[in-house]
Order: sequence, then structure tokens, then C-alpha cells
Amino acid sequence: MEVLHHVKDLGLAPAGLQRILWADRHMPVLRSIRQRFEKERPLAGERIAACLHVTTETANLARTLAAGGAELRLCASNPLSTQDDVAAALVSEFGIPVFAIKGEDTDTYYAHVRSCLEMGPTLTMDDGADLVSSLIFLGLGRLDQLNPQVRALAEELGAEGRRRLAEGVKGSTEETTTGVIRLRAMERDQVLQFPVIAVNDADTKHLFDNRYGTGQSTIDGVLRATNILLAGKTVVVVGYGWCGRGVAMRAHGHGAHVVVTEVDPVRALEAVMDGYSVMPMAEAARKGDLFVSVTGDKHVIAIEHLLAMQDGAIVCNSGHFDVEIDVEGLRRETSDRWDVRPFVEAYRFPDGRVIYLLAEGRLVNLSAAEGHPAAVMDMSFANQALAAEFMREHGEELEAAVHGVPPEIDRAIARLKLETMGVAIDQLTPEQEVYLASWEEGT
Amino acid sequence: MEVLHHVKDLGLAPAGLQRILWADRHMPVLRSIRQRFEKERPLAGERIAACLHVTTETANLARTLAAGGAELRLCASNPLSTQDDVAAALVSEFGIPVFAIKGEDTDTYYAHVRSCLEMGPTLTMDDGADLVSSLIFLGLGRLDQLNPQVRALAEELGAEGRRRLAEGVKGSTEETTTGVIRLRAMERDQVLQFPVIAVNDADTKHLFDNRYGTGQSTIDGVLRATNILLAGKTVVVVGYGWCGRGVAMRAHGHGAHVVVTEVDPVRALEAVMDGYSVMPMAEAARKGDLFVSVTGDKHVIAIEHLLAMQDGAIVCNSGHFDVEIDVEGLRRETSDRWDVRPFVEAYRFPDGRVIYLLAEGRLVNLSAAEGHPAAVMDMSFANQALAAEFMREHGEELEAAVHGVPPEIDRAIARLKLETMGVAIDQLTPEQEVYLASWEEGT
Amino acid sequence: MEVLHHVKDLGLAPAGLQRILWADRHMPVLRSIRQRFEKERPLAGERIAACLHVTTETANLARTLAAGGAELRLCASNPLSTQDDVAAALVSEFGIPVFAIKGEDTDTYYAHVRSCLEMGPTLTMDDGADLVSSLIFLGLGRLDQLNPQVRALAEELGAEGRRRLAEGVKGSTEETTTGVIRLRAMERDQVLQFPVIAVNDADTKHLFDNRYGTGQSTIDGVLRATNILLAGKTVVVVGYGWCGRGVAMRAHGHGAHVVVTEVDPVRALEAVMDGYSVMPMAEAARKGDLFVSVTGDKHVIAIEHLLAMQDGAIVCNSGHFDVEIDVEGLRRETSDRWDVRPFVEAYRFPDGRVIYLLAEGRLVNLSAAEGHPAAVMDMSFANQALAAEFMREHGEELEAAVHGVPPEIDRAIARLKLETMGVAIDQLTPEQEVYLASWEEGT
Amino acid sequence: MEVLHHVKDLGLAPAGLQRILWADRHMPVLRSIRQRFEKERPLAGERIAACLHVTTETANLARTLAAGGAELRLCASNPLSTQDDVAAALVSEFGIPVFAIKGEDTDTYYAHVRSCLEMGPTLTMDDGADLVSSLIFLGLGRLDQLNPQVRALAEELGAEGRRRLAEGVKGSTEETTTGVIRLRAMERDQVLQFPVIAVNDADTKHLFDNRYGTGQSTIDGVLRATNILLAGKTVVVVGYGWCGRGVAMRAHGHGAHVVVTEVDPVRALEAVMDGYSVMPMAEAARKGDLFVSVTGDKHVIAIEHLLAMQDGAIVCNSGHFDVEIDVEGLRRETSDRWDVRPFVEAYRFPDGRVIYLLAEGRLVNLSAAEGHPAAVMDMSFANQALAAEFMREHGEELEAAVHGVPPEIDRAIARLKLETMGVAIDQLTPEQEVYLASWEEGT
Repeated sequence: MEVLHHVKDLGLAPAGLQRILWADRHMPVLRSIRQRFEKERPLAGERIAACLHVTTETANLARTLAAGGAELRLCASNPLSTQDDVAAALVSEFGIPVFAIKGEDTDTYYAHVRSCLEMGPTLTMDDGADLVSSLIFLGLGRLDQLNPQVRALAEELGAEGRRRLAEGVKGSTEETTTGVIRLRAMERDQVLQFPVIAVNDADTKHLFDNRYGTGQSTIDGVLRATNILLAGKTVVVVGYGWCGRGVAMRAHGHGAHVVVTEVDPVRALEAVMDGYSVMPMAEAARKGDLFVSVTGDKHVIAIEHLLAMQDGAIVCNSGHFDVEIDVEGLRRETSDRWDVRPFVEAYRFPDGRVIYLLAEGRLVNLSAAEGHPAAVMDMSFANQALAAEFMREHGEELEAAVHGVPPEIDRAIARLKLETMGVAIDQLTPEQEVYLASWEEGT
Repeated sequence: MEVLHHVKDLGLAPAGLQRILWADRHMPVLRSIRQRFEKERPLAGERIAACLHVTTETANLARTLAAGGAELRLCASNPLSTQDDVAAALVSEFGIPVFAIKGEDTDTYYAHVRSCLEMGPTLTMDDGADLVSSLIFLGLGRLDQLNPQVRALAEELGAEGRRRLAEGVKGSTEETTTGVIRLRAMERDQVLQFPVIAVNDADTKHLFDNRYGTGQSTIDGVLRATNILLAGKTVVVVGYGWCGRGVAMRAHGHGAHVVVTEVDPVRALEAVMDGYSVMPMAEAARKGDLFVSVTGDKHVIAIEHLLAMQDGAIVCNSGHFDVEIDVEGLRRETSDRWDVRPFVEAYRFPDGRVIYLLAEGRLVNLSAAEGHPAAVMDMSFANQALAAEFMREHGEELEAAVHGVPPEIDRAIARLKLETMGVAIDQLTPEQEVYLASWEEGT
Repeated sequence: MEVLHHVKDLGLAPAGLQRILWADRHMPVLRSIRQRFEKERPLAGERIAACLHVTTETANLARTLAAGGAELRLCASNPLSTQDDVAAALVSEFGIPVFAIKGEDTDTYYAHVRSCLEMGPTLTMDDGADLVSSLIFLGLGRLDQLNPQVRALAEELGAEGRRRLAEGVKGSTEETTTGVIRLRAMERDQVLQFPVIAVNDADTKHLFDNRYGTGQSTIDGVLRATNILLAGKTVVVVGYGWCGRGVAMRAHGHGAHVVVTEVDPVRALEAVMDGYSVMPMAEAARKGDLFVSVTGDKHVIAIEHLLAMQDGAIVCNSGHFDVEIDVEGLRRETSDRWDVRPFVEAYRFPDGRVIYLLAEGRLVNLSAAEGHPAAVMDMSFANQALAAEFMREHGEELEAAVHGVPPEIDRAIARLKLETMGVAIDQLTPEQEVYLASWEEGT
Repeated sequence: MEVLHHVKDLGLAPAGLQRILWADRHMPVLRSIRQRFEKERPLAGERIAACLHVTTETANLARTLAAGGAELRLCASNPLSTQDDVAAALVSEFGIPVFAIKGEDTDTYYAHVRSCLEMGPTLTMDDGADLVSSLIFLGLGRLDQLNPQVRALAEELGAEGRRRLAEGVKGSTEETTTGVIRLRAMERDQVLQFPVIAVNDADTKHLFDNRYGTGQSTIDGVLRATNILLAGKTVVVVGYGWCGRGVAMRAHGHGAHVVVTEVDPVRALEAVMDGYSVMPMAEAARKGDLFVSVTGDKHVIAIEHLLAMQDGAIVCNSGHFDVEIDVEGLRRETSDRWDVRPFVEAYRFPDGRVIYLLAEGRLVNLSAAEGHPAAVMDMSFANQALAAEFMREHGEELEAAVHGVPPEIDRAIARLKLETMGVAIDQLTPEQEVYLASWEEGT
């Protein structure tokens, strides 16, 4: 049977397969879930539409969901993050429908989203909430808010078809901080029609993936794109959430002088005490050699900051959407633009100063490097797989709201991960449990 | 008018005064609150019983509460943590009743608690929940659970007096993780008779005081006690909560090889990813040169661990109570014991191996050094002062449960602290606030 | 005039040019030398044969030497380190003869060396001492020691031609620790026929390039090849010289547990005090997840170590020659071999365990990544350019021995580098100079 | 027999003895030498005058020299660094003549030097070259350069006695960078009359003691004196030699923002690449919260710097002599001065700003804390003991110049230290030794 797909070149499949197996080697927790799923088939009968970065790690999640019995379609959650050999291998080697091409334009991006929605999913998986928001606009009949590609589907379906599509979804899962922020806004605006599990908020996700994953992969993306020496450079990290901490930690680990900008006073104080310099962006703009935004917010590197930077400054983003840097403003204010190296574009201001923008302002870790290493995605995607299983079992009991990953799933993943790393830990003795539960014993 | 007190030597007051003023210099947030309190007198009419470590920082909190119009009595929250010159200065220079002598025995400790309770407090402040637990035993009539010193008071008061005493308390505040654990156990057992604010749980408290404060002061205590070189040593940190992170960070910052032991798998994984070795205590016991417990739990360094240690191992505790190391077991199993240096006691096992115990297993940072630096206590005690003010205003509206510090207090303290450090940060633009609140904008 | 060359594809020149200019942007010290050389032409009349890694940074050195008036030929100093686009651009855009193709076999490698020797150089530049050793074998008539390609030249030249070739060399410069070790052995064996300047030993070279350059680029090479997560991994660094310190520092900066192996007790002690674990290789072999050799010595990762490693261990080398890992032994003892990703080759032992070898055991930083960043090569190659100028002026006054870079050159480069980074420093006051020169003033 | 001495209080001996034994526990290398010395008595017949910091570690060196058969006298090398209990114990428990009282004035200091010289030493040991410079002034008859106390001895001895005294010295050893700088100046001025071994320059001394020892103990001294929080503070380290690196490393390890000032461009570049901020002192003066000088030079914290500092700045020195801070200038320019805490003195400028000076500008690590930990002094003093033995055997063969510690001693100490730490390392295989010695093998 032919597998539906839209990928760059199926001939890339063998290389993709090798890389998927390499990632699998570093994803023992997900692998053990896949092995159980193969036996138990807990997702049999489910149709899962997944909008995720199409990487080797995602491929292993897709294999796991398929092993669990789900029918699956996968599209990209970012136009630049697809690994074309992986997309090809998923189709050719694993028979999974994939709709994703690195460098696709916005219309193709949404044509791929449409291909996923067409399956009439019972469960969806998001990385940035694009599927869920499309479903909501569909369900609300706000067709003008939809990209034309998805709008066409909406029109084909008609009001009744749209209703059925939206109602068919038992629940969804969300991978990112950015997506969770959007979802909470939907919850507050009372437009959520089904429960969503915020996979991002699991401890075994955000404490690891956002921090150690984003930290390493962002630096990796910057080095692959630029090959600059970080030691002695001033690196401005915009935002000191979990991702920002990771980036700051790794930039510091390379000998850089790290400057942090923040809007939250508690985080700003932590950054100071962690030994970083903290200042407003207007001041940091004049000092930085390299800027990395990781906030989930818009125009945190605004045009006035870009205008204030030193000649030669390098600017990139590792937040989910490409809104963090005002790229449009940069285009408007510069007189000249050219390619320097892959993923490095030079912009010249009329006064002669040149600013280098990496990966067009899209996530530099997924565009110029390969995204988070498999070993952290192992936990993130173990959460995804188990959250899907949980949603299948309990989705109908849950309110149409944003829910956390059940703590027992979170802790089980941590325990499993430690085991696969060969790390043993202690257990409370019965005496200690009693002590912690009592209040009578004092000084 | 004579000030009630029981301190070591009032002649120490001048030195204490100088040290209090030195700490004050590093507590600008608390100072600004004190200046406002002097004008507004928001605590006028309150009787506050405070059971806290009697240090220079606490002295400045006491000055602040007094400036706010409160009548105040202060006793020690640990027999070894009192700074006798500070106690003297509080009495002589500031007219505040203090009951605390460094090295006091358990009976004297509770005689001092009694002196505080006798005032019939309307508000109490705890560091370990000793006042609250005493009040609860009193209120419940469980006199057998009380130390004889407090029991004597209970008997003098009679049932009616005890009821009035307990009912007179509008609320309490608690400084430590350990105390909060006890208080939640009280809440669960439904014995709490008044609301308690968990000052410990404020971000501006535990993220700073527990981490940077405990981290630095614990290492400081170890070095003052032992003068050992940390570089190249194996330091076992028992517990990877906020305090444990601080101790691990600072030990690592001194060039030590840090081993972490944990019971929580997520924390254990974080420790691994932070670059530390993680293993069960039974294994760590054989490897460590220095052991520091910071768990809030009992016998985490148990006798079987002590028995497994290398000759020359140094063992100390920086958790609130002196239960973390099984000191009694150590005494039982060793044949010989002698003093090596102040706060360093040698214990010889029958096989000849010697283990060194610091500060009798009591908090090494407060016993052998001076506790947390003023700059972190500035925030912790700003929370205490503002929590007292809040309790005065809102105590009667609150349930008899454990409450957090109101977030607006927390953030205001962070902002004020940054200002006093000369650090400016960014503010969200209106456009950014809209962006964060919306969910419509996607890829 | 056609430029002699043997490169992969001249069509790659435009991309190479952009990358060379990008590197130039980060090499301000070398650029200022080039600007002076253009005016002064200090190397006019010299024929320089250079055997260096053909990277964007080397391209800027080549431009500088050419600007100084030298006639220049460039061949690769390692079969895997050539950047084909750079080689093309040097030929097409700058008219410099280049003989280098990434992935060339040993015969092609030496055919390229031959092409350089054929010019009859007056000065040579080495990165590993291959040119100098070839010249010495030629001069000594030890033709059997020469690779057939170079031997053919030797035979064509005849005894007289060989003598003239060797005598025509005024002097040489050497870039690496490995090369300097070889040269000192030549000096000891009294076979050196001309002076050599050990550029490697300049402070502004080895303290920076070997440490910060090798450190960052080795990790970069490992990540590009493998995309593994370093946090929590055990990384074994074989050798704690300047390169090893760099690698250890950066691996640690990524959250890895670093194990160091050494033969020198002082360095081993430093590694311990720097917070790393130190153990013999036989023990480290069983613990490591990733191994990096940086010793300049042979078989430091020997077959018995490879046999002892865990399933999945990753092994690579960042030392100059591909002798540090016993690759031949690995081939002999394994039953199966396949490609996993570019620069990652899997070897399976008969017992099923798989070891991954990166870049065939050649320098991983130059093979899988782009070598040292321009900002450090800036200083290394400023030393090369100024050493060439010095050799031209003073070569004939120097003994046929290994010489250091004159300290005034070294310090001038450091000053210039600081200036270009916008960093100002202090100067001794006259009073301080007197104080330092006097001995009379005591306690 | 009564032991000659001038110490504070012999009653302190028991406490001193315990502390000496505690240090001995952490000095296994020196202990093994002492055990050999006891058997071999290699210093029998020597009279050793030692001018060293009278600490627990020095006590164990003194015991070792005495065990070797030497007749010994010990005086302090700094007026503030004596540990009075140790001085007492050396006299009472070990029968070693000591002349040292903490806080002694300059005349007493030199009276103690005189007491050492009076013994007619055959070997001297210096920490700052005060004994050697006194002997040189004596030998040269430059009596006006001598402190009156020593001058009186010189006059008593007469020309002939002075000649005999100077000629009686076979050689000397020197512990510090500062002393070695002075000695090289003496060598250059051709006034050295006997050979001196620069113990400081041994790898097992300066790489460890100066870096890890000074680093830890300086921070320790600052914390004991001030109890300030280092996290988030700006710490200015004046000088980036081995001591400065140690202080910077440990300040950074406490979460401080480290600023380095330097006069040497190579060191300044290293500091930049190590991630520190580098700037001239004039600029750093305005930014620092804490200043530490470690240069061996005069007035590196000059009065213009002190005048530029922020209100509340804390200033200290960890270099050998108290000349690094212009304390006299500070006294002259301030209107008011008072004691804040032990070792903390406040100085108020007429404009109201207050600067805090620690330990009167003398080495803060020895004044406010206990100097280097025993574990590093173990190696430094092993070098001293073995250098004394070497000087006894070979002193007469050596020129009157500054000599290094023989490398075999240096390496033997490193090996012994590793062994006592339970750390094993590798050995070159015969094949590797051949490889390293050969130059024939190339690419």
C-alpha cells in the first residue's frame, strides 16, 4: 500500500534510517515504552495527527505511537526544522505518512497541517499549538483566521463536517512553553473544546529538554552556523526561563561573558546571583557580540535594539516562533543584504554597520543544528507517548482545560531514565517516612 | 526601665552593635521597610514572640519589628547558633528582650521558649516551628509532649490560661523548609489553630537564602572549623533540594568532586545532568572525604554509613535539626572521642578509623560560621516583616492553614533588591503584553 | 596566468570566498599585519612552502604571506582537514597554488607535499613537521624513508639537486606541539639543517589556540558528528596538556563528568585539583561514554582499552596524527563495520558490543567541524607571519636548532589582540618598575 | 633544658598541639619525609634559621627539619600571620625555639629576625627574603639599611663577626614569588653571597599552593572578616598570576562577577578568554564591591583608585608584603577611622563615603583566616625539606645564584602526593617512549 506523503526525496531514506537508529540508541526510555506498546497495542483505533519538528527523535516517537496501534500522520511544526532524510525514512522504512519539507513556505506549511487534519484525528500532538488553534478556529467558524490552505479544507467540510472534525478530538498534548502559554490563553478565553496535556510542564520535560537540550543545541546551532570563538565574547541571553538558563550555562561553559535581560525581577535576581550581568536590553544591545532570544515573546530584540548594536553583532533566536527578533524591521532599516555562510545572512545599515542574522530568526538549534539531542528528547517523548495513552484512557473524564502530566508518569520516567543510565538512588526508610509525616519532634 | 533578658554577657554589646550595623549596611531592603515602619507603626499593639537564630541579621529584623511598634521577645531557634554579642547588643542598645546563650542545653533552650510564650503573643515567628508546636501541644492539652520548662508554664496557666494563650495568637510565620514540612503535617492532622505564612516558600526567600545563603555559609562553616583544602576532595552532598544545590555549587566552585545522594528521581537526574556523580549513600559513604547533609530528614547519614566511611572522613549537617546524622549511633559505636579544634570532634571506631564530626551535628553554617550573609537574609527578613504586617491586617480572614507569601510582596521585594543593587531590568511593552495574552498568532 | 593547483572543484570558490572573508572579519591582528605587508613587501623574493590545514583561517594567512611579496605554495597537513571550497577560492580568487583535497589518500597527500617541495622553498611552514622531515630525509639521502611520491622527486633531483634543495631552506616554522616534539628529536639527533621557530611555543599561540581553540572545536566536532547530549555523560580526556585542558574545560562546561588520564604526575595532580577524576586508562576505558585523545603520542587508546569499553562508547582523537587510537587493532578485533552518520563509523566486536569511531581517528575538530575558530587562529597565524618575516631577516644568524618566537613579537601580538577586542589594561608606573627591580624594601 | 623563645602564651600549647596534629593528618608527603629524616638524620649538624608564617603547617615543617637532625630557630615572616597557639606548642611540645607573636610591631618583628640570625645559621629559609636581605646588608656592611634591632646585632658582631656570619651560610631557600623577585634582583645586582633555591618555582609548589591555596584561603579570609555574600558581587582581582588565577577561580566559584586588572597583555588575554572582565584599575575601581591585590608589586591599589571607589567598597591584599594597597594614602585622605569587626577597619572620606580595609592591608588569608590549607602546604614544605637536604649535600657546588628545585624532587613529590590521595596514573609504554623520541613517523 502506498503511504501518503509529501517529502523532499525518498532517496534520502537510507541515511535517515541510520540516523533514526542512532537516535534510538540514545532513547532507551522511549524504546522500552515502544516495546511494551508493541505487545499491548494501547492506541489501537486512535487516529493521531502530530505537528512536531521532524527530527530523528520525533521519528522514534512516531514509531512508538505506531507500535501502539495508532494510525498516524505527521507534519512539521516549523518550516526550517525538518530533516528531509528522516521524513523520507519514516515514509519508506516505517510506512508513516509525513508531510514536511525543510524550507517550505507558509502555504506549504499549512497545506501540510491540512493533510494532518484531514485524517479526522481522535488525538493531536502539538509543538506550538498550531493544530489546536486551527481546530479551534474551525470549530468556532472563524474561517478568516485560518491560513487559506486550511480554510479550503474548512470550506470543503461545511459547517457539519467542521463540527464533526472538532468533536472527534478526544484530547491533545503540547510540547512547548510557547504552546502552553497559547493554550492557557485559549482556556481563559473559554474556546478550548477538549482537554490538553501540557507535556512541557512535566518535570522530566522542561527541567531537562528546555534547559540541557536547548542549552547545548542552541550553542551547537550557533557554532555550526558561524564557527566563532565563544571564549571572551559577550553573549546576551534574552530571557532567563528554563531555556535561557540552559543557554546561559552553556555559553558560560564556553568562556563567554554572559549578559541576561529579563522582565521578571525574581529571575533577574537569580541571574545576578548566578554570576551573570543583568541589564535592560537597550544597554545590552550596545555590548553584545552574540544575542540569543528565548522568551516566547514578540520583538524582544526590537528594531531599536538592532539599530544600537555594534558592527558585526550576531543575532539569533531559539524560541519557538520567529517573532522574537523584529526581522521585518531589520529588513526595512537596512540597505543591503547578502548570504555569508549557510544560515548566516548579513544586513547592512546605511551607516555601514553590518548585523548577522542566523537562520532567518527561526529556532537556530533546529535550523542550523539538529535540535535537542536524543537523550533529552527520550524523556520528553516518553511523556508524549504516555500522555497519549493516558488521554486515550482518561480523556473523556477530563475537563476541556490545560492539564499537567500525572505525577506518577513523570516520576516513573525519571526512575526509568536513571536506570538506563546505570544510576542508583536511595529510598526513604520507613523510619524516615514517619519522621517526615510527623510534626511532634522538635529541637 | 530594665529589659528582660537572659544572655551571656551584656559587656559584649559594643562589639555586637558594630556587627549589627555592618549587617544593616548589607540589608537595604529591610532597612527601607524599617524606615517606613518607623513612620507608619503598622505593628503597634502587637506582641510578637520570635524564635529565630540570634544573629546580626535577625537583630536587624528585630529592630524593624520594634520600629513598627510591636512589643517583641526573641529566643534562639538552635542551641548553638546564638551570637552572644548580638544578643547583648539587642538588650543594651535596642532595649529588646532576648533569651539566648550560645551552647545552652535543651532545658535552657526551652526555658527561653517559655519566656517568649509568657508574653502572650499575638503573632509568632518560627525557624523550625518550635513555638507553634509548643502552642499546639499547649492548646491540645498534650502536656506530656512538652519540655518540662514549657510544661511548667502550661501547668501554671491552667486549662483556661492555656486556651487564652493559644487563642490569642492571630497567626504565625515560618522561615524554614523543615518548619514548613512540620506545619503541613500539622495542617493535615488538623491541629493548626491559626494561619501560618510559609515565608520559606516565597521565591525571594528559598531561591536565594536556601541556595546562595546555605551554599556559601555551609562551606564557610566547614572551612572555619577545619581549614581543609576542598580542591580535589570528594564532597558528598546529601539531598539536592535548594540548600543541597547551593552546597553542591559552592563545593564544586572550590574544585571539589561533588557526589549527590537523593531519594527523588527527578532531582537525582538534575544532579547527574548538572555534572555531579549520583549514587546511593551506601556507596557514597565509602568514597567521601567530606559529607554535608541538607535534607530536613532523619538519619540520612545513618550509623551504617558512618561505619563504612574512610579513616579521616569529616561529617557535618546544614539541615535545620540535628537529627540528620545519627550522632547517638556514632557515640555508641566508637571507643574514643576527643576535641581536635573548635567545632571538630574526633570519634575513633574500635578498628582504629577516626571520623570527625563538626558542630555536634548541628547546622555547621550557624555554629562554626555566622549563618547566611546579610545580603540574602535581607530578602528573607523583608518577607518576615511584611508577612507580619500582612498577618496583622489579614490574619483574621485567613483559614488555620499554611499560606504562601502574597506574590505581590514577593515581587516587590525582588524589585527593591534589584534597585538597591543598581540593577535595572526590562518591562513588557503593551504590544508584548497583548501578544502573551493572545493565542491567535501562530506559525 | 594559470595557477598551479590540485583541488576538488574550482566551482566551489564563491562559497569559499565568502567564508574566507567571514574568517577575516574575526582575524583583526593578522589583517593589520597584512595591511603592513602590502606596503612593506618584507617577504619579496621568498619562496614559501606551507603544509597546513587548508581552512578559512589558513587562507587568510596565505593572503598575508602573498601580500608580503612571497611566492607561496600550500598543501594540506592532514588528509581530512581540507575545506574544498577554501582551496578553490585560494586558487581562483587569490591566485595562490593549492594542492589539497578533502579525503585524499596517503599517496595523494604526499604527491601534494612533493608539489610544494618542487618550488625549491626558501622558507617552509609546517603543521606536524612533515615538510621538514621530508627535507631531512632528502638531505640525508635516506630515500627509503620517503613516501614513494616524494622519493620519485628525490630520485629526479639526484644527489646534487637534493643537496641544493635542502640547502636552499633558510628556515622553517612549526605550528603544533606534535611537530615541536618531532623537531626537538631531530635537534637531539643532530639532523636539523636549518633553524626552526616553534610558533607553537609562543604564549599567544599555545595558551590560546591549543586551549580555547582545541577545546571548543573538538566539542564542536563531536557534536556535529554525533549530536549526543554531553550533560551527564562521562567524557574521558586522554592527556592534560594545553589541548587536554581545553577539551576538559569545555566538556565540563557542557555538564559532562570529566575523567582525565595522564602520564605526568604534576599534570595529573592539577587535573585532580581542577575537580576532575584522574585514573589510569585501563580503568577509565570501562567508565567512559566518550573518549578524546590529545597527547601527541601513539596508541594512548590502545586495543586493550577499546576491548574494555562499554557497548556504545564513542572514541575520537584531536591530536595531530592519527596514531593516538589503535585503529588498526580495532579493525582487527571487530567482526563488522558500518557507517552510522557522516564521520561516525560503527565497529562491532564478536561479543556484540559496538564502538563508534569518529573521523577515522583523525583530528575530529578539523574533520567533522571546521577547526579552530578564526579568533584564535588570528594570533597563531600572526605569529606565523611575523616568524616568517623574522626568519627572512635573521634566519642566517640562527643555529640549526629549535628556537622560540621572540618575546617582543609574542607580547606585541597580545597587545594588538587586546586592542582589537576593545580591552585596555594597566601599565607599570615608574615607581612600580623601580620597586620590582629593587630588593632592599622588606617587611 | 629551657627552650629559647618569645611567644605570646605557653598556656596555649595544648590547643596548638591538637591543631598541629590535625594539619599533620593532611600532610602525608611531608610526614613520609619526616619519617625518613628520623632514621637518616640528613641535617645533623646544620643550624637552620627559618623566617616563615608560624602556622600549623610550618610547625610540621619545623618538626621535619628537627627530625632530620637540624638545630632550628623560627621567626615570623609577617607580623599578623602568627598563630600564637602553634608558636607555644612548638616551644613546649616540640622544644623548638620560636620568636613570633601575632600583631607584633616592626621592631619586635626584627628583634625576632635578630634572634634567628644570632644562631649563626648554616642554612636559612625565607618567605619573602627578609633573612637573606638582612644577611646581605650585614655582609655588605650597609648597616643603615638594617632595622635598628638587626643593626644592633651587626654592631655587636663587628666587621669580622659579620663576615663570619654571612660566610657561614651555605645556602637558602625561598618560598614566595615576591621573595624570588627580590632574589633575582639581588642576583642581577651581584650581591648574593650564597646559592638560593627558589622553592616557589617548583611545579608542585606554585601551581598548587599559589593557585588552589591562595585562592581558597583568600576567600576564606574575606568571609571570616566580613561574612558578606559573594554571589552577585563584583570582585576585582588585581593581578592574574598564579595567585590571582586562584582568587578569580574561587570568587567565580562563589557566584561573583570577576574583574581582572593586569599589566601583562598575555595574562590579560587569558583572563578575557577565561570569561572574566578585564579593564584598567582606574575603571575597575569604580565598579568593584571587593578588591583583592595579588601582584607582588607596590601601590597597585593606589590612592587615586581608593578615592574613586564606591561607598562601602571592601579592600584587601593577599600579596606577600603590605605595600600593594596605599594604606598610608588612605589614612591621609580620610577624616575618620573605626573598627567594624575583627580585621575590618572603616575609613571615611570627607565626602562621606566609607571604604573598608581588611587586615590593615596585610595578607588577608593569613591574618583573618589560617593561611593555606595543610594539603597544599604539604607539597610546598616537602619541597622546602628536600631543598634543605639538597642544599646540605650540594650547596657548595652551586653558584651564588637563584636555582630551581631539581626536577626529580619536584616529580617525586607529585608522585608521592598522588599516591597518598589514592590516585593512580598511567606510564608510558616502551613503544610510546620510542615514538616520542623519534621524528621519522609522519602522516
